Amino acid sequence: MAIVLGENRYGKAENRVFRITRRGDAHDILDLNVSVQLMGDFADTHLTGDNAKVLPTDTQKNTVFALSHELGPLEPEAFGIALARHFLGTQTHVSGAEIRIEQYPWHRIVSKGTPHPRAFQRDGSHVRVATVRASRHGGGMRTWVSSGVEKLVVLKTGDSAFKDYVRDRFTTLKETDDRIMATEVTARWRWSECDPARLGNIDWAATHADAMDALLSTYADHYSLSLQQTLYAMGEAVLKRQAAIAAVRLSLPNKHHFVVDLSPFGQENRNEVHIAADRPYGFIEAVVQRDDAPPPPATWPTW
Amino acid sequence: MAIVLGENRYGKAENRVFRITRRGDAHDILDLNVSVQLMGDFADTHLTGDNAKVLPTDTQKNTVFALSHELGPLEPEAFGIALARHFLGTQTHVSGAEIRIEQYPWHRIVSKGTPHPRAFQRDGSHVRVATVRASRHGGGMRTWVSSGVEKLVVLKTGDSAFKDYVRDRFTTLKETDDRIMATEVTARWRWSECDPARLGNIDWAATHADAMDALLSTYADHYSLSLQQTLYAMGEAVLKRQAAIAAVRLSLPNKHHFVVDLSPFGQENRNEVHIAADRPYGFIEAVVQRDDAPPPPATWPTW
Amino acid sequence: MAIVLGENRYGKAENRVFRITRRGDAHDILDLNVSVQLMGDFADTHLTGDNAKVLPTDTQKNTVFALSHELGPLEPEAFGIALARHFLGTQTHVSGAEIRIEQYPWHRIVSKGTPHPRAFQRDGSHVRVATVRASRHGGGMRTWVSSGVEKLVVLKTGDSAFKDYVRDRFTTLKETDDRIMATEVTARWRWSECDPARLGNIDWAATHADAMDALLSTYADHYSLSLQQTLYAMGEAVLKRQAAIAAVRLSLPNKHHFVVDLSPFGQENRNEVHIAADRPYGFIEAVVQRDDAPPPPATWPTW
Amino acid sequence: MAIVLGENRYGKAENRVFRITRRGDAHDILDLNVSVQLMGDFADTHLTGDNAKVLPTDTQKNTVFALSHELGPLEPEAFGIALARHFLGTQTHVSGAEIRIEQYPWHRIVSKGTPHPRAFQRDGSHVRVATVRASRHGGGMRTWVSSGVEKLVVLKTGDSAFKDYVRDRFTTLKETDDRIMATEVTARWRWSECDPARLGNIDWAATHADAMDALLSTYADHYSLSLQQTLYAMGEAVLKRQAAIAAVRLSLPNKHHFVVDLSPFGQENRNEVHIAADRPYGFIEAVVQRDDAPPPPATWPTW
Repeated sequence: MAIVLGENRYGKAENRVFRITRRGDAHDILDLNVSVQLMGDFADTHLTGDNAKVLPTDTQKNTVFALSHELGPLEPEAFGIALARHFLGTQTHVSGAEIRIEQYPWHRIVSKGTPHPRAFQRDGSHVRVATVRASRHGGGMRTWVSSGVEKLVVLKTGDSAFKDYVRDRFTTLKETDDRIMATEVTARWRWSECDPARLGNIDWAATHADAMDALLSTYADHYSLSLQQTLYAMGEAVLKRQAAIAAVRLSLPNKHHFVVDLSPFGQENRNEVHIAADRPYGFIEAVVQRDDAPPPPATWPTW
Repeated sequence: MAIVLGENRYGKAENRVFRITRRGDAHDILDLNVSVQLMGDFADTHLTGDNAKVLPTDTQKNTVFALSHELGPLEPEAFGIALARHFLGTQTHVSGAEIRIEQYPWHRIVSKGTPHPRAFQRDGSHVRVATVRASRHGGGMRTWVSSGVEKLVVLKTGDSAFKDYVRDRFTTLKETDDRIMATEVTARWRWSECDPARLGNIDWAATHADAMDALLSTYADHYSLSLQQTLYAMGEAVLKRQAAIAAVRLSLPNKHHFVVDLSPFGQENRNEVHIAADRPYGFIEAVVQRDDAPPPPATWPTW
Repeated sequence: MAIVLGENRYGKAENRVFRITRRGDAHDILDLNVSVQLMGDFADTHLTGDNAKVLPTDTQKNTVFALSHELGPLEPEAFGIALARHFLGTQTHVSGAEIRIEQYPWHRIVSKGTPHPRAFQRDGSHVRVATVRASRHGGGMRTWVSSGVEKLVVLKTGDSAFKDYVRDRFTTLKETDDRIMATEVTARWRWSECDPARLGNIDWAATHADAMDALLSTYADHYSLSLQQTLYAMGEAVLKRQAAIAAVRLSLPNKHHFVVDLSPFGQENRNEVHIAADRPYGFIEAVVQRDDAPPPPATWPTW
Repeated sequence: MAIVLGENRYGKAENRVFRITRRGDAHDILDLNVSVQLMGDFADTHLTGDNAKVLPTDTQKNTVFALSHELGPLEPEAFGIALARHFLGTQTHVSGAEIRIEQYPWHRIVSKGTPHPRAFQRDGSHVRVATVRASRHGGGMRTWVSSGVEKLVVLKTGDSAFKDYVRDRFTTLKETDDRIMATEVTARWRWSECDPARLGNIDWAATHADAMDALLSTYADHYSLSLQQTLYAMGEAVLKRQAAIAAVRLSLPNKHHFVVDLSPFGQENRNEVHIAADRPYGFIEAVVQRDDAPPPPATWPTW
């Protein structure tokens, strides 16, 4: 019944890397939030405070910025793979790395009908995310990549019903075949491939745009009998378009918009005026996957 | 040296009104956050707890939703004027009202190349705001309206310098003629007209779009010697386009992006790799106005 | 109808100053968030980009930290006065300054029954605030000080009624003589004295503690017929205790806790089980003051 | 290579239950935020929109409030167990439940030296949390409980060094034996016992207070050679005091406070004046456990 060190990791979180790429007078930008966590043989620092195997988080921060400079404007997935390879390649006592990256989208300001070469407006409609997990494998590295989107808020004013559900002594909800269905999409898709060399063939930007389009157009076009059904259709659409994706995980809060009862004031509210509620909210989560999807990587415990 | 009641007001804040307008199978939406504050003869409730002159905030909430139903999908400025008129018109002991409205923009989801008639995506690029202040004036009402925008994040990667400033014993900043200039625009423009009838002639949506375009294109095209100079140019541009606007007030935090010193690693960083900082931040505020601008309305004390 | 520069100011916001004072092995700490805004003759930078009169916000930041070092651990009001005096004293084209300070409270961790000399726990129960506004006056300086508290969340489960209010066609609220009354107190008290020398005699820490006690004990002991009545009693209590305070301004959101209707489940809820709501919320604001209170200082426009 | 439904769950999140317990004129309060997620046979609603096995999240919300009324003021762990048992007991197609509860602490306002029987102040120093995971087991239920604390911000001004770490080409950090060490503690401890009946013997309130004391006093008294070492000591202290706890998981962001370089101003800063930084931050996570700890429960995927 001894007390022992269990799983552990450490790193530098939320390194805010902003990169300009200059093509003459026209500039491109890349806005990333990069978090690094390293796993490995770190028992000494926990048990005795001996830091001989600890690469300081300050150094990790320097590494993120310096490698961004050396490597140029990589897609988040590619930059994450490069960072993981660097830490595993240079620190022999590091056995694994997790790199989490958020990318904030911007678009060019349009002035006098022309997109400006050096002026940008933040596009607050979503955040692109990527996570790379790597561990040693033989003399090389195995790499799990997931890509995704967060803070994508969508709403539909029709084509949504909710009926024929379980009833018990605590049921008060009324059935509806005309409700607002709104959610803030958090989606993650993980890639089947784990070989860093072959992962290098994926066009991360193009597949991200395609997955976003699949999620949005399916959400819009689907006649929904439940938020679960819409979720499944959205995940299925991504998998149908992208053969290299093994599974899609979706978390969809049900952002309730309630029809306001105006009958006390002699008004008939034909589902026109709603109140947008904050809490509580329904919360629907599921994985949609291929039946031969390889197993996901080990992740940090959340019990 | 008696103790007395000074300025006071009360109301219901953040009524989240979501409105659908149905045109057959195609729907339009309007997403508002409406806050009401009433001023008037409220000494009794403060001094003795006699509520005979208190219109409950719960009733104000009901009023916001019921009037939204009765009046249909008004622009925020017009809805604010209508709400102010309602409270002054029905509550004789109410002498003034302040209605603050945020409008959250949405755009249609594009599916298979076509904007969907009933599915929407939240546009997180800014929040539109309007404030209406009204007080009794003769038998009628005087109304001050300000419109604006918040949370509009912009950044330019060139055309920005900062030099030739004051130096003292605490100066360490280096001059630059090539820096990132980024800010989150909070802008308010107030209208000269106070007569509710004549205010009814303003096309609030069109003027808002035009002011936004003036702000964004000026920000993009301006060669900046200081954020103050850019601010002035932005305010001036709005005033030049819209004769009915008396003054523009701008608050521009300087969202610093610092060039990372990579020289310890033998790298030359030619203003490519930056770190986006959180705090502290510069904060620039000014009013740009016509020299014959009418005085602004009284506002709530902020000492 | 020329376009002109109106009110303007600039500065460095949210300088996070954390100070240790060492008394041998025992340490005291001071945790401040300091924001500086300067007013003055800044037309040139706005109109032409000539920065010859602009003290950079970076220098203001340096000044905040350097003066904190030189002056030692001052109370926020005293530090604000010193900063204002510095900027007015060294920058001839600066005519006014506003210094806003938040102080985050901490208490010592108690280990084995003893408060630890060097280990602390953040006390999240409130934030102490102070604002100093200064302008030139003859060869010297006039100084307005306000002190206060924010994020002080309180709740009472009895001694609160709300009845006999105005009714109109939008009334649905039921009267109650037993409700939860909860709020998040934002309070500001301004001091009559404007002479920096005489302000130096005020014991800021002791008066702050006394005002906090007045606010809290009055809130607790008061039988409330309306939140307005409680607000007035709270402000009055501060003024009765502290003769040097001219006025108290209070902003009290009504954090609604609604009794849940459990009758559909055959349960009688005797005001036991509530749901805490987010939005909308009532919002009550008032100034309680002496009838001979000197006028407040000019403040930044909020139209 | 068919597409299939993988792991899935749904529920109602953030039910804000506020409970008064009346003992004559003296009241006790309980402030909870309760989130429910159910697992089970929900393929139909995902694949066809058939909701015959879906207990609506609205009903789950009703259940949370009604059971709080029926059961009285339970500790969060006990309430979570009761909710899980309810859903498994009444919904045959539900195979598992996860109940997450946050408890917000309050203390009584002290007026005239006496704690008030019905007036309270929110204690913002931490949030108490508990998670219950249950699944069917034979004819009964297996239950995994974890308890913990979040948003506990602590800081020490001495007894902290960081030296003798790995160096590489990206190292710029200087060694120190006198630094501020500050963190926001997120701690979770999981209980060995999974039998709901025997879990009923645990005094949740007393063990929570004891674990908090172990965390805080160890943090305060420990001489730290690294944040990892302090983390391990904190987890070990909890395990040494509470034999029924199997493992402690800690997430400790390193809230950096940097000594400000005042040498450009001719000042020597003897580690007195610091700037509190926001991002990036170090992030240290580890599990400290018994070597015979039973395995943790299955949790929601986070790849």
